[in-house]
Amino acid sequence: MKIVTAIDSMKGSLTSKQANQIIVDIFADDEIEVTAVAIADGGEGTVDSIVTNTDGEWIETRCRNLFGEEIMTKYGWLEKEKTAIIETATTCGIHFLDSSERTHPLYTNSTGLGEQILSAIQNGAQKIIIGLGGTGTIDGGLGVLSHLGVEFFDANGQLLKPIPLNFTKINYFSTKNLFPGILDIEYILAADVTSVISGQEGAVQLYGAQKGLKNEEIASFETAMIHYSQKILAGDISQAGDGAAGGLGMALRKILKAKMVSGLDLISEYSHLESLLDEADLVVTGEGKIDAQSLQGKVPVGISMMAKSRDIPVLAFVGSMQGEIELFEKYGLSVVVPIVNEISTLTKAMQQAEENLRDAAMRTKKLLFLLQ
Amino acid sequence: MKIVTAIDSMKGSLTSKQANQIIVDIFADDEIEVTAVAIADGGEGTVDSIVTNTDGEWIETRCRNLFGEEIMTKYGWLEKEKTAIIETATTCGIHFLDSSERTHPLYTNSTGLGEQILSAIQNGAQKIIIGLGGTGTIDGGLGVLSHLGVEFFDANGQLLKPIPLNFTKINYFSTKNLFPGILDIEYILAADVTSVISGQEGAVQLYGAQKGLKNEEIASFETAMIHYSQKILAGDISQAGDGAAGGLGMALRKILKAKMVSGLDLISEYSHLESLLDEADLVVTGEGKIDAQSLQGKVPVGISMMAKSRDIPVLAFVGSMQGEIELFEKYGLSVVVPIVNEISTLTKAMQQAEENLRDAAMRTKKLLFLLQ
Repeated sequence: MKIVTAIDSMKGSLTSKQANQIIVDIFADDEIEVTAVAIADGGEGTVDSIVTNTDGEWIETRCRNLFGEEIMTKYGWLEKEKTAIIETATTCGIHFLDSSERTHPLYTNSTGLGEQILSAIQNGAQKIIIGLGGTGTIDGGLGVLSHLGVEFFDANGQLLKPIPLNFTKINYFSTKNLFPGILDIEYILAADVTSVISGQEGAVQLYGAQKGLKNEEIASFETAMIHYSQKILAGDISQAGDGAAGGLGMALRKILKAKMVSGLDLISEYSHLESLLDEADLVVTGEGKIDAQSLQGKVPVGISMMAKSRDIPVLAFVGSMQGEIELFEKYGLSVVVPIVNEISTLTKAMQQAEENLRDAAMRTKKLLFLLQ
Repeated sequence: MKIVTAIDSMKGSLTSKQANQIIVDIFADDEIEVTAVAIADGGEGTVDSIVTNTDGEWIETRCRNLFGEEIMTKYGWLEKEKTAIIETATTCGIHFLDSSERTHPLYTNSTGLGEQILSAIQNGAQKIIIGLGGTGTIDGGLGVLSHLGVEFFDANGQLLKPIPLNFTKINYFSTKNLFPGILDIEYILAADVTSVISGQEGAVQLYGAQKGLKNEEIASFETAMIHYSQKILAGDISQAGDGAAGGLGMALRKILKAKMVSGLDLISEYSHLESLLDEADLVVTGEGKIDAQSLQGKVPVGISMMAKSRDIPVLAFVGSMQGEIELFEKYGLSVVVPIVNEISTLTKAMQQAEENLRDAAMRTKKLLFLLQ
């Protein structure tokens, strides 16, 4: 029989690749073939997933992080397809924040992403996939656009430094000095496609505080972001997804004509998931925490719906679960198996995730074949 | 297919009967016949298990508790077999202790058990099964024996009050006034057959403190118990099981010629377990907590060994588990399924035991048939 395993990362415990490997170790035998598909939601882990699923390589490059410090970063490279896969968090990641003024959202930007894009183009990239997510910036793409040659001017025609502090000073921008060939590339954004640029669920109000904005700064930052976004949108209506990664979604969509896709679509394409599922007898998925009330939009659930449409049973291993079994079934999750096996604290359960997943997988395999 | 479910009680959460009923509810359908066998380890729950398994009845009787207070108690009655099943805890239970002098082990005794035995004999009992366990007394059977007519005398031939305070004063005892017919009855003791009368693992040193002996009283109580036990044993060697229920094991074995059996043997006999297993395709068992290091002697493990010898797969549902899967397998437990499904405190897990067992059973049933 054929099993496809596509478990999401269990945050803080196991990567998707590690979790899948456990399933391969336990389930694969003379009669069971297991294919692993590393998955991610477009955010952190997306590049790793695609590189893993395609046997791609990594390119190291020196770039600036969100406050301008030089760091070594890497991005994925698929030689055959001339495709680069860049994760915004490697340069603009929230992990760079240190509560100092230099990492305050007014002063940080996404220049590093621009450097990675140029590096990819210099390597001959014809397609660049950018995983948006995990960023500490809210620069609406000011940094990346500037680095690629877009110029932002104030009312006096003075060139502005590309930091959010200058959002309100921007009077107009010009793309005439855009890096040559920059618009000949196909850009794909892998993102949470529901993020919006402003408002209560927007890039500033929803994520501003965790990126270092003080409560009293949120309103003025939001006003500034709206001013800036009106310049970039140039009369267009903002779309869902524009708010992804502190507004990078909007900038890349509007200026680079990037196409936005869900994490599942990307994974699906690069892992040949559809054809793998056509052959599968059982699908294994899972994630750290599953809640029957918030299943929509989750990658394991998307995979499970794809399996359901093919009448393939789906097992989900989860760190913890909540909710009625019937709700999980509606989304194609035939059986949800919690991996905890005793009274435990969250810390302990996370430390033991590998061992617990291994035991749960062993137990489950036995149950599947116990009466056969 | 035929399933036998024999889950032990999950202490503080579910009785054996309740746990089995959940398995019946979930597993029984048009194609699956589920037979429930209530189990117990000889201690608390044993009478209930036998009465449940045999559709026996209950007889109410007024008796004294361990400090002489009159209470209503009940014992099981199997009319066809003229068999009474008495649980020592109903009269001598540790739950009667209140830290006052009247419930101190020096002053309490098992008179109430004697009253229940006489009631059973007056009802025509030909066989009396006594579940030893859960007692708050350490009277070595002084109370029950006295009530049945055994007389204990001091060196001056004075009749002694049957309380442990008088252990050391006992010079000899007489059975000539034993209640008529008392020795014509078959007595069966269901007990933890490993309890000894004295020493570090004995009735006084191991359980004295929890029954109200102060640390400084243990040594002298132990000496007194040894003095008393030498009278009862009358030159015989003490056996494992003699220490059960504060020494009741020894008294009933020596004076009433009671036969000691394990909880499993009893359950097995009264539930026709052997013939049920002969027909079974799957056995379900379980208990509150299972630890691979301490499997020996546990009732679910005994049942699982019986199933193993017949090559029947065994599932065990447990509140929590610890230890290597291979060790469980050695004892015939094909798959051990923990019922917890999220990070949880012990209190919460115990409160949710019913719901968790139900969910785990549902999940497990689905896994068993998912690929069929």
